[in-house]
Amino acid sequence: MKAVILLSGGLDSSTVLYQAQAEGCDCYGISFDYQQRHARELDAAKTIALSAQVKEHQIVSFDLTAWGGSALTDNGLNLPSSRSLSEIAESIPITYVPARNTIFLSFGLAYAEALGAERVYIGVNVLDYSGYPDCRPDYIEAMQEVFRLGTKQGREGNSIQIVTPLIHLKKTEIIQLGNRLGVPWEKTWSCYEGGETACGVCDSCRLRLAAFAELGLKDPLPYQ
Amino acid sequence: MKAVILLSGGLDSSTVLYQAQAEGCDCYGISFDYQQRHARELDAAKTIALSAQVKEHQIVSFDLTAWGGSALTDNGLNLPSSRSLSEIAESIPITYVPARNTIFLSFGLAYAEALGAERVYIGVNVLDYSGYPDCRPDYIEAMQEVFRLGTKQGREGNSIQIVTPLIHLKKTEIIQLGNRLGVPWEKTWSCYEGGETACGVCDSCRLRLAAFAELGLKDPLPYQ
Repeated sequence: MKAVILLSGGLDSSTVLYQAQAEGCDCYGISFDYQQRHARELDAAKTIALSAQVKEHQIVSFDLTAWGGSALTDNGLNLPSSRSLSEIAESIPITYVPARNTIFLSFGLAYAEALGAERVYIGVNVLDYSGYPDCRPDYIEAMQEVFRLGTKQGREGNSIQIVTPLIHLKKTEIIQLGNRLGVPWEKTWSCYEGGETACGVCDSCRLRLAAFAELGLKDPLPYQ
Repeated sequence: MKAVILLSGGLDSSTVLYQAQAEGCDCYGISFDYQQRHARELDAAKTIALSAQVKEHQIVSFDLTAWGGSALTDNGLNLPSSRSLSEIAESIPITYVPARNTIFLSFGLAYAEALGAERVYIGVNVLDYSGYPDCRPDYIEAMQEVFRLGTKQGREGNSIQIVTPLIHLKKTEIIQLGNRLGVPWEKTWSCYEGGETACGVCDSCRLRLAAFAELGLKDPLPYQ
């Protein structure tokens, strides 16, 4: 079975790729260069795609900086660095990018339909990112309906399925799953800053470091 | 009220732009360069946007040729040219581009949320394009739910609305509406081929020419 995997190069989507392979899928990666400040994650996506020996890896480029609206695409805005983990989980943060997952899933759908793939995997997880509206289960259900009604394949009764293996997992549980699957954490990238090494203080680094620490494990990624 | 208008440069979307202005909207155009073979339509979109004096016109570029799947993005496939108008209306044609309107609406949503716009206008019409799954009312309703659940604005009870003024109009009725609104037809572009003048034989040209003829009007666009 062919499956498209939305691959950012982070801890979550890398785990999803290894999970899809464990489920027996032929995996086709798709990553997005949207002029994000942490373009370093694209290198990680390429490295992870190679490690996992995907069948193909597409990089789709477009520019989300033209209209701003997020600290991830507007270098004039500062990234938050001193929020508590519960604050990260509960509010819609400045790192929210308008409609990002909708755009990503749309391209994933186009690629899947062109390939004749049956599934699109995405690493959303509601527990760590409940602040992001486009990571929640009701949103995923709405997109599933778009997948069904918006494609030739779906209209013919053979809808492409959105698969979200991490949706109810906490970051610690994702790391435990990834450890069982053999995900090479040292090749992943989570930091929102564009530096050579991870900053250790942005929301994304702090969620990741806290989860490894809670499990009594060391994150193999070098930090500043 | 701010509104984003998906503007292809064709007859339908140009009419929608003029309609949105007649409804009192401040219009922000968005067009897509997806390496379509009829890139000539982008010049038409720019000209129409200037004629209508939109507040801003964004051109978003990405490449849909990487994975093929449509005669509009694959120059190795021939465009259909001898189908009857009823055949054009009833089957999903080779010019169907997987997930195109889903991608377009996703970018329209992102732009609208960044702008603080209340509406996104799209020129889908089910009568002439019932063959395209992503032009039908049930599909638009599904996307509306994505707009509501997939954005910060929507979650706060202030969802961006998808507006489809043409959805139940035939091509002849769209031309009648455009005539009342003063749409400059000579600046629009519908042909799927990439030539200097419209081919007159592709599905899109034939639908357009037949509608002008049915109304006893002359299409001011030069044809080969």
